[in-house]
Amino acid sequence: MLRLYSYWRSSAAYRVRIALNLKGLAYETVPVHLVRDGGEQHAATFSELNPQELVPVLVHGSRILKQSMAIIEYIDETWATAPALMPVVARDRQRVRAIAQVIACDIHPLNNLRVQQYLESTFGATQEQRDEWTRHWLRNGLAALEHILGDNPSTGDYCDGEAPTLADCCLIPQVYNAKRFNIDMTPYPTVRHINETCLALEAFDKARPENQPDAQTAG
Amino acid sequence: MLRLYSYWRSSAAYRVRIALNLKGLAYETVPVHLVRDGGEQHAATFSELNPQELVPVLVHGSRILKQSMAIIEYIDETWATAPALMPVVARDRQRVRAIAQVIACDIHPLNNLRVQQYLESTFGATQEQRDEWTRHWLRNGLAALEHILGDNPSTGDYCDGEAPTLADCCLIPQVYNAKRFNIDMTPYPTVRHINETCLALEAFDKARPENQPDAQTAG
Repeated sequence: MLRLYSYWRSSAAYRVRIALNLKGLAYETVPVHLVRDGGEQHAATFSELNPQELVPVLVHGSRILKQSMAIIEYIDETWATAPALMPVVARDRQRVRAIAQVIACDIHPLNNLRVQQYLESTFGATQEQRDEWTRHWLRNGLAALEHILGDNPSTGDYCDGEAPTLADCCLIPQVYNAKRFNIDMTPYPTVRHINETCLALEAFDKARPENQPDAQTAG
Repeated sequence: MLRLYSYWRSSAAYRVRIALNLKGLAYETVPVHLVRDGGEQHAATFSELNPQELVPVLVHGSRILKQSMAIIEYIDETWATAPALMPVVARDRQRVRAIAQVIACDIHPLNNLRVQQYLESTFGATQEQRDEWTRHWLRNGLAALEHILGDNPSTGDYCDGEAPTLADCCLIPQVYNAKRFNIDMTPYPTVRHINETCLALEAFDKARPENQPDAQTAG
């Protein structure tokens, strides 16, 4: 009934895996290898599903759903009786969405695979230059997140109070990416605390890249 | 009561101006010049308001609201009696948000001023190379949008049926950007049609960059 086109290391797919797990929804994983054979996301079978040629895609019956944040709100609205992933009050909903969007608009797309490939092919950017590019936008975004989260009474053990929301679904995959790029997390204590709280939950743990059927030990 | 920190040419601020106008809400514009004096968004007075140092910011009473899509949904939820900017059904809401996110996640952030500045300073990208970078992500995103919009019975004279939504608030500023970069719009007839429908409405017209108090004739 639910089929998730995913790649173990895609942080956008990771967000949706967390949301599905938090809601207690069973789903089938269809791995899309973003690197092998020039990228399986560019194959006709996948690009028909998503002309953007990006994961994740969630198929729900006959519905083909794209864009991770929009998918997560759909999951939340469709299975409304399971634990809520969004607060009730407009002010809090705005804050949760804004935190998610700092990540999903202003950090992640800049560091995506297709951007790395363009930097290499057009500007001849070396691996080290591309890594520094990635770290630049990660540090920039993490500093903003720490500011937004650290100095706000709405923040609890999670981004919004004492239960996970859309914001945490986005934050934890981004911290995973930051660690991959050896970002020193010392300046972001609030982000670190929320990350630890979340990863202690089974829903987040099951969604980790290492725990996916298509996970690789290297590469 | 409503104060919008805006820059006439910022397409993210343009989105929020459209939403405020569609809702019939009066607001005060506070111009933040993104280029003059190294960028007024980096001044302490503004970065205290938004540590990301990005426009727009909407101030509603004591509330400081960031991230354009999250601001627009807040406006829609807070002034619920004015014309709705979101559909009612989860499936349609997902589609509207996904269209908005194709633009606000996967086109706009790549072409933002701060990215252009990084490309220039780190990779020595020339003006022509930076323009080609911008056009690359614009064409890529517009092709995906045309595919999503053109082949779907949910699309009407607007992105979703016969009334403007969050998706149109995002699409029209992106078309404005595409024209600024001389993108040939011929391959995107559905996008063009929606753009024309929207710009005929006063709410969209008033929000145009040229009609802002801080608009400049050149630069």
